[in-house]
Amino acid sequence: FKPSTIHRSLSFRERGMQKQTHPVARRLFDIMEQKQTNLCFSADVDNFAELLELADKIGQYICCIKTHVDIMEDFSAQNIKSLKELSVRHNFLIFEDRKFADIGNTVRSQYTGGIYKISDWCDITNAHSLPGPGIVSGLKSSLDDKSTRACLLIAEMSSQGNLADSKYKQSTVEMASEHGDFVIGFICTSKVSENPSHIHFTPGVKLINGVDGFGQKYLTPDEVIRRRGSDVIIVGRGITESANRIKTAKEFQEAGWMAYNRR
Amino acid sequence: FKPSTIHRSLSFRERGMQKQTHPVARRLFDIMEQKQTNLCFSADVDNFAELLELADKIGQYICCIKTHVDIMEDFSAQNIKSLKELSVRHNFLIFEDRKFADIGNTVRSQYTGGIYKISDWCDITNAHSLPGPGIVSGLKSSLDDKSTRACLLIAEMSSQGNLADSKYKQSTVEMASEHGDFVIGFICTSKVSENPSHIHFTPGVKLINGVDGFGQKYLTPDEVIRRRGSDVIIVGRGITESANRIKTAKEFQEAGWMAYNRR
Repeated sequence: FKPSTIHRSLSFRERGMQKQTHPVARRLFDIMEQKQTNLCFSADVDNFAELLELADKIGQYICCIKTHVDIMEDFSAQNIKSLKELSVRHNFLIFEDRKFADIGNTVRSQYTGGIYKISDWCDITNAHSLPGPGIVSGLKSSLDDKSTRACLLIAEMSSQGNLADSKYKQSTVEMASEHGDFVIGFICTSKVSENPSHIHFTPGVKLINGVDGFGQKYLTPDEVIRRRGSDVIIVGRGITESANRIKTAKEFQEAGWMAYNRR
Repeated sequence: FKPSTIHRSLSFRERGMQKQTHPVARRLFDIMEQKQTNLCFSADVDNFAELLELADKIGQYICCIKTHVDIMEDFSAQNIKSLKELSVRHNFLIFEDRKFADIGNTVRSQYTGGIYKISDWCDITNAHSLPGPGIVSGLKSSLDDKSTRACLLIAEMSSQGNLADSKYKQSTVEMASEHGDFVIGFICTSKVSENPSHIHFTPGVKLINGVDGFGQKYLTPDEVIRRRGSDVIIVGRGITESANRIKTAKEFQEAGWMAYNRR
């Protein structure tokens, strides 16, 4: 990674007020400024009891909770309702990390149908740009009201040996620009778009740099937000594997926000 | 697409007998020769009543059934058990088209956990190579017995404007070669590997060429199997949207097998 000369031209608040900013992105920018947090908690647990407890206890420190609904052993409409209630009480968004990756006709069914009915409850989901623009059209086509649902495109990955090269990234940014009524930003390892309405989410964040057993690389909040110009840090195991999860979540919130203020 | 000079150097039976052929691939090659079918039925329906009825009625014409378990409204262990029973009675494999697309640590949980517990019941699943080799390691790491579960990597897509270019395809083939104990072939639009143990599956097959509303392109069995050198045709809407599904399934079986015999 080559350090760039990224500087904060506009605040989150100002970016939320841009005319072209999607309503879901505006909500997120507002939450970030109100709660002074750019921490998205990746709830990589396998049961709702633990997820709901965590969401309640660290809800004040996060702008967004990221779920993998398909690793939960006890998915139910009631559990989703409880999560929604917590998201209202603590004012955070729900982001289902589905990584849609199929043709338009299939992802439409996967987004709205089956047991999970993801589009009923998640504010934000994400998709790979790999299948081409039909994936975005397919997801979008299922929504009656596009002002309450949004999508992130995966422009870069943080795993070793991944195949998303610079051309891939560029094509992804173009695809996002063509679908501003649904795509609000990116999963990426650094800022990829100059459009202030776009929000950049970066996973693989820990308080110290490193690599896991399957090649997932970790970077610090300062590296990700200040040096690489991303906006939101996604932290999972950095919090869930901590002996004191609440204290650690607060540390990430402070580190992420400090990095934002320093850029 | 540039027509190539693909010719059938080895039969499916011979390819199943190669020393390096994975046990799941061997089973599939055997089924194909025994039943004289290289038709994989893509069961794009949203309920098990319909899926099980179809699987029972067209089971004799297919080597494999492809599911999207997450679009089923009535997933249950009992319904999966019924599908397994049909797969034994009619001798076909079950292929869950999950298109895993996350880092290794996450796909491991998605493959084995949650409500679906995919690795418990599917013979074959598939994954995008996009996240790098960690995705294959992650899936593999969850299996006690790798001889009964296998994976296809998505080397090419059939949707318009997709970002899987020739370099991407080449990297995918290399990744497959390095994980022969789990990866048995590819989702692709034409033959991508010279390794006779690798099986090529091609989706987007109808009896006439065309395009759907989200940019999915369709090719004929002859084009896919004889000219492009793929091995298995994946047919979904070509059958499910037919007024006579059983008759149409038989037509695809015959067309696919004839194309195989003519190459």
